[in-house]
Amino acid sequence: MAAHGSGLLVGLDGDDTLWHSESHFITTTERLGDLLAGYLDDDASHEDHLIEVERRNLARFGYGVKAFTLSMIETAVEVSGGRVTGSEVQRILDWSKELMDHPVELLDGVVETVGSLAEQHDLVLVTKGDLLHQESKVARSGLTELFDGIHIVSEKDPDTYRRVLEAHGTRPDSFVMVGNSVRSDVQPVLQLGGTGIHVPYHTTWALELVENDDAGGYERVERIADVPGVLERLAGT
Amino acid sequence: MAAHGSGLLVGLDGDDTLWHSESHFITTTERLGDLLAGYLDDDASHEDHLIEVERRNLARFGYGVKAFTLSMIETAVEVSGGRVTGSEVQRILDWSKELMDHPVELLDGVVETVGSLAEQHDLVLVTKGDLLHQESKVARSGLTELFDGIHIVSEKDPDTYRRVLEAHGTRPDSFVMVGNSVRSDVQPVLQLGGTGIHVPYHTTWALELVENDDAGGYERVERIADVPGVLERLAGT
Repeated sequence: MAAHGSGLLVGLDGDDTLWHSESHFITTTERLGDLLAGYLDDDASHEDHLIEVERRNLARFGYGVKAFTLSMIETAVEVSGGRVTGSEVQRILDWSKELMDHPVELLDGVVETVGSLAEQHDLVLVTKGDLLHQESKVARSGLTELFDGIHIVSEKDPDTYRRVLEAHGTRPDSFVMVGNSVRSDVQPVLQLGGTGIHVPYHTTWALELVENDDAGGYERVERIADVPGVLERLAGT
Repeated sequence: MAAHGSGLLVGLDGDDTLWHSESHFITTTERLGDLLAGYLDDDASHEDHLIEVERRNLARFGYGVKAFTLSMIETAVEVSGGRVTGSEVQRILDWSKELMDHPVELLDGVVETVGSLAEQHDLVLVTKGDLLHQESKVARSGLTELFDGIHIVSEKDPDTYRRVLEAHGTRPDSFVMVGNSVRSDVQPVLQLGGTGIHVPYHTTWALELVENDDAGGYERVERIADVPGVLERLAGT
């Protein structure tokens, strides 16, 4: 399917690779802290409690704003010992709508870099989260036309990437995935025999953290604008 | 892509076409009525209120259990004038987990009919709702291997079906969609120039109801076991 000379299929992650996402969740988590301040013991952390609730809900609720909101509400009930009020619950629901409606803010250099990559390679977007919300963010990013395929997935594991490669008729050794999560964008692609380029975001969600983050075997660059240079270097070796 | 002699691509809906779904939502809505009974005015209906909340949340939250749960919680806050308690909110959250975990119960005749259809036609599943939950239901249905493609979509409109047909290299006049919703499974397919077969479920969610349901232009059968006969008849005309 490769229409470009390079023969490479380049995958790009969405949240925190092309546009800001985690920073909005952090802001909302801070608001939850303010809301719960009166219910919390002095030495207790609402963030730790929320992460534990999200962790146990992950297999059922998956990723995205709706799952996050349900876990915030459950955290509020638990932390408050059931004393959280209806109007406080409504405030949490209102935050979820703000998160859904938040404008898509592209990271620095994304427009130029993705445009430049699209001239030389086939591009696919591989992103996880709420189906409708991710579709909306892709549409609002203005980048849709640059991609040969858009894959919104429930989990980024080797099986998922295998299906993406099959859909594009690409072998793993012709696939390069670019993203901010070592756990989701790099490790499963390495497992398949592909190439990963890690572009860290300034913060990483606790459930995306991996131990042994520096095991290596992949490229790491500071900003997305550095990706074309890495691809040129890889092509030359 | 048609590997079968018929040259037809047959699309099947999931919820309330292959497996029970709406009945679980109705049971949960009844539980919400019990929970809210003390808050409701005598002449007020929690169901009407819930439908209105779901309607206004649809464009943001989409379909599925997570959206339904967020709308149930919002309904509880509103109907109770903010007096709903934390433990009542937790009960609603618990119901959402029960809905997610509910075993997949296939409708009568599904196993035989889908097996028989798969011998003669290419089959695709086209279903909407939470990505992870739908994937889980498809996997638990035991029907995965019978489908040439599984499409979990955020909305069933003509654009969605156009993308499904493109993915399978099928023209609209070679596509037949089978499902319980005239609004989602039949009308958009007719708009594209395809064929729709309506298999009513015993109940239909208010937001799937269409006016002028009997405008015609499509087939209606009582049960999914009648679908192969309709396809034979259509092929013979």
